[in-house]
Formats: sequence, C-alpha cells, structure tokens
Amino acid sequence: MILKNDLILRAAKGESIERYPVWLMRQAGRILPEYRAVRNSLSGFKELVETPQFAAEVTIQPVDILGVDAAIIFSDILVVPEAMGLEYQMIEKRGPWFEKTIKSEADLKYAEFDFDIEDRLGYVLEAIKLTNKELDGRVPLIGFAGAPWTIFCYMVEGSGSKTFSEARKMLYTNPKLAHDLLSRITKVTIQYLKAQIQAGAHMIQVFDSWAGILGTEQYAEFSLRYLNEIANAINEVPLTLFSKGAITSVGAIAKLNCNTVGLDWNMDIQAIRAEIGDSRTLQGNLDPCALYSSHAEVADLTNKMLNSFQSKRHIVNLGHGVYPDVDPEKVKTFINTVKEYEIKY
Amino acid sequence: MILKNDLILRAAKGESIERYPVWLMRQAGRILPEYRAVRNSLSGFKELVETPQFAAEVTIQPVDILGVDAAIIFSDILVVPEAMGLEYQMIEKRGPWFEKTIKSEADLKYAEFDFDIEDRLGYVLEAIKLTNKELDGRVPLIGFAGAPWTIFCYMVEGSGSKTFSEARKMLYTNPKLAHDLLSRITKVTIQYLKAQIQAGAHMIQVFDSWAGILGTEQYAEFSLRYLNEIANAINEVPLTLFSKGAITSVGAIAKLNCNTVGLDWNMDIQAIRAEIGDSRTLQGNLDPCALYSSHAEVADLTNKMLNSFQSKRHIVNLGHGVYPDVDPEKVKTFINTVKEYEIKY
Repeated sequence: MILKNDLILRAAKGESIERYPVWLMRQAGRILPEYRAVRNSLSGFKELVETPQFAAEVTIQPVDILGVDAAIIFSDILVVPEAMGLEYQMIEKRGPWFEKTIKSEADLKYAEFDFDIEDRLGYVLEAIKLTNKELDGRVPLIGFAGAPWTIFCYMVEGSGSKTFSEARKMLYTNPKLAHDLLSRITKVTIQYLKAQIQAGAHMIQVFDSWAGILGTEQYAEFSLRYLNEIANAINEVPLTLFSKGAITSVGAIAKLNCNTVGLDWNMDIQAIRAEIGDSRTLQGNLDPCALYSSHAEVADLTNKMLNSFQSKRHIVNLGHGVYPDVDPEKVKTFINTVKEYEIKY
Repeated sequence: MILKNDLILRAAKGESIERYPVWLMRQAGRILPEYRAVRNSLSGFKELVETPQFAAEVTIQPVDILGVDAAIIFSDILVVPEAMGLEYQMIEKRGPWFEKTIKSEADLKYAEFDFDIEDRLGYVLEAIKLTNKELDGRVPLIGFAGAPWTIFCYMVEGSGSKTFSEARKMLYTNPKLAHDLLSRITKVTIQYLKAQIQAGAHMIQVFDSWAGILGTEQYAEFSLRYLNEIANAINEVPLTLFSKGAITSVGAIAKLNCNTVGLDWNMDIQAIRAEIGDSRTLQGNLDPCALYSSHAEVADLTNKMLNSFQSKRHIVNLGHGVYPDVDPEKVKTFINTVKEYEIKY
C-alpha cells in the first residue's frame, strides 16, 4: 500500500520535508467524545484494547477528527507483561494493578518468556492490520512497546508509584535477577515489535515512562543497555526512543541506533540539539498544559517552539500524553499552527 | 545555649570541619519502631504534628538512636496552607487531600494570608522550643517550610498528583492569579520561617518537592523568583534550598542568597560542583534505595559518594526522604561510614 502522507517517516530519516509532521501521544483517547462513546459502549478499557475492530476505530478517530500526520495503534504497554502471565487490572483513578509480581527468583515462575507472540498478542497485530486497511494509506501507523526498564518497574512494583522503590530496591539487593528479568523482557519486546512491523506498523516508538527515577549511571546500566539491544534489532522501520525525565541521558540515547529521540516538556530543545548535532530527529515537546491556554496563546506557544527548532529534523508532538480534559478544539489549533508554519531548513 | 556539635552549621557556611556532618530527610518517622509506638498511641498523624511534646519526642529520637548531626523539627509542609484556612486530611496510602482549593480569584476567599503566626502555628514554635530544651545543645535543630511553588501545587490541585496538571494549568490560563497566590504564600512563608528562627531553629531548609514538573523557564518564573525572595529575607541562620528534580535549574538555585543546595539522588555531584564552583555547600545525595543493600554495600556506596565530593562544602544526606521499610541498622551503617571517613579538604 502506498502512503499518501509519509511526512513523519521522512522527518524521522532526516530527509527533505515540506512542513513539520505532527501527532500527539494519547491522541486516541479520552479527549475525544467520539472515543468516549466507543469506550462507554464496552465493559472497560481492556475490552477496547483487546477487540481489534474497536481498537482500530479509536486509532483512526484522531486522523479524521484532528488531522494528525500519523496514527498510533490504540493499546497499552502492559499487554506485554500480561502476555507473559502477569495479568493486570486497570483500576479507576488509581491506574494499573498486578496481583502477581516478581520480587525473587522464585517469582519468575509466574511469568513465561518463551511464547508465540501471535498466540497471545494476536489481537494487537490484528488491530494493526485492520487499522491499515481502513486508513488506506492516509497516514503511517506507529506501533509501540514499553522500554524494558519501565515494564520491569510494573512487574516488580505491581502498580504505579511515585518512587518505584520496590523496583529500584532490586537493583541493589539482586542486580543479577534484575538483569535476568530485563534481558528476558527485552527479548520478548523485540519479538513483539518485529511482529507489529510484520503486521504493518510503519514506525516504532519505545516508551520509557519511568526513566526519570534513575540516576545517570543506573540508567545506563539498567535501561540504556536494553534500549541499545532493541535499537540494534529494529532496523526495518524508523525507531523513536522516548525516555521521559531522562534529562541527563539524552545525549547517550541519541548515540543509540535510533532515528528519533522523544523529548518531554522539561527538556530544552536547543541545548539538546547543540549537544547531539543533526544526526537524529527530535520529537516533542510542547507542555501539554499549554493547551489549556486561549487559542491565540496556543498558537503563540506552538510558534515559539517551532522557532526554536533550527533544523528540519523534528517531529512535532507534546512533551507528554495529551491531558484528558483538554478541549479538542485547542488540539486542532496546535495542529493547524504546525501545518501552517513555513519550514526554513 | 551553646551547641556541643555545630558541624552542620560550619559545613553550611563553608568553614573548616573535622568530618562531614550527616542527617536524613524523614529521619524522624516511620523507619523507627520508637516512632511508630508514639504514633500508634495517638489518633493520627495530625495529632502528632500538632502536639508539641510528641513532636519534640519524635524529633529527638533519631539523635539518640541513629546518631545524626542535626535534628529536624517533626512537622509537615502542609501546616502552612492549613493555617491559611485550607484544612487537609492525610488519607492512608493516598496522601494529603484538601476539600477546598484555589482555582479562581473567587476561591481566594477560602484562604487568609494576613494572620498571626503564633496564633495559628504556635504549636510548631512550641515544639521547636521544647525540642531545643530537651536536646540541650547536643545538635542543631533544623526548621523548614515548603517552597511557595510546592505549596501552590497543593492549594490549587488539592492533592498529590503525578502531573499536577491543574496547578500547571493556571500558569497558562491565569498567570496573574498564579503570581498573586505565590506572592501571598511567600509572604506567609517568610514570616513563618522567621518565627521558627525566633523560636530557636538553628538552620532552615526549604523543600521544593514538585520542582521537577516545571521546565527551566517556568521554574525560573514561578518558583525561583519566590525562592529568591525567601533567600534574601532569611539571613539570621544558614539556609538550604532543596528543589527535587530541578536538574536544569541547580546552577540558578546556587546563585540565590543561600548557603546550601540540596541534591536529589539523580543529580551528579561532580558535574554540579564543576558548574557552581565552591561558593555553596551541597547536601545529599545517596539513593535512598542504596540502604536496601547489605551492610558492606551500604558502606561501599556511601564511600563512593564521599569520594566524589572533592570539597569540604558538603552535608551528607540521602537524595530523598528515607523510605519507610528501610532497616534502621542500615541507616546506622550509612551514618557511621560518614563519621569514619577521613576528610581531605
């Protein structure tokens, strides 16, 4: 299938672009009344994730309604630990919760690391195929997974946490088990991402949501090492690495074999560009709270960000997932401002 | 009263010291069975905070039991918004919760900013006096308050949050009200800190717990500006500013009129020392999770940190409050390792 809009793929590869591509993390989701209508017709979040026709429907909504330059498959990073055998519940207002966790070698019995991806995660692959069929080449489709470190955090801690002290504890008390678990997660993640590409994902993003809780040295040892394995394994399509909060590791991330480095809203685009040069595309990073401003201010803040780029190697996004109570009309102002911006490079 | 151990005050001022001083954030608290015995004899956390004899008792426990070089008055940063009229509840496993919040100019009616500190926060001042009496000069007593930005976060959001998007929203939708509220909080905070010094606090620490959720520019506008007012107003005793997560603002914080800059466990001591020179004392920053290691490893990790100092201008601490399930014996190993370390500067 020929893509009618391949702007984001060209931007990722550093090729010539006529304008900056734009999409939003969590664009398929709670901000859209059309999403809530689908969601409320189902038993819950997990039914939506696990039913390809509904996942495809909400994946495509922001392409139609908001006019983004890419779709991202509607799913969750926690489908991977679940496929391993650690089932999770999504508890209203509290987030994910796992009954079983891995805190010792003995707990490894709760998880399997050698299984058929199609067998346990086929619903995601099916959703990718269905989405591409219905998108009919209008925009590329992004596949994704959590970074091994972030998946490790949930598998050890068993829920979200401000400090993830249970997960970080293992780095001190049993680093061998931590590396063993991280290696196994990495292996499954690579298989899963390759299956997504095989199913039709045009681009891959790896989310390291809990990067910010580790210092630079521990991040290198317990996360970068595994991101490196993934980056070396995924060569079929452009790869984006987004390590939220890893301010002191951005330079090291940019040295991995990826196309694009995602930036959160606290990261300074110009300082990072100066540090890493022009060999990687940067993605981000408007503060999601900027979309609470008036339309005129959203446009101003977006233009200010665009003016800071000084390179064609950018994919526009927010610095975090769009917040649920943001007015979709403000999102449109953000997107339209990017589309109207005249690129200088 | 003459202090028998004034090591931490000399370290803060950059004077000569015979060894590095050491204390822990949250040292008076859940790690000690002696604390839990007092806490469990009362109706709850707030009774403990509000009753000077009990607050003094738990403040002194770590001096006796752990051998730290400073006591910090047992209290909570949220006593300030409460004194303003926004009462909070401490909900088990969920943290603080405020019934009333400030989201508009009209909501300012819920809070008073011009009141007698002695009248509403006299219990803290009384606890300081009682603690000093019972300490009898064994170690200095640290007073504290939350930074205006962090107090603002709670007053607007009404509870803890991963993103504090309600609080950050106001920075875009109504920056005038945000500055108005921050100014008022600052004024009260300065009065409160001066009252603590008057009551006998030998040193002051300001905690900016939610510094890390703002980018560099917004941090300068909505937090540093008010920390600067506090730093210029508090000259009677040494002042420590601890902005957790503000990695890109540490240089700017060190330029404020303070003695000591607190570092979280993700901050690189040597890089920061190289950036700011030797004009400020640094405080921190062992990863609290390091205390889950074996005794030998706790000693190794502590020595590794001490070796990185390369200056006498250090106060040893963790990079975050000690976690509740840490073995107090490991804390002693940490403290004793610091005490045995031979200072080279």
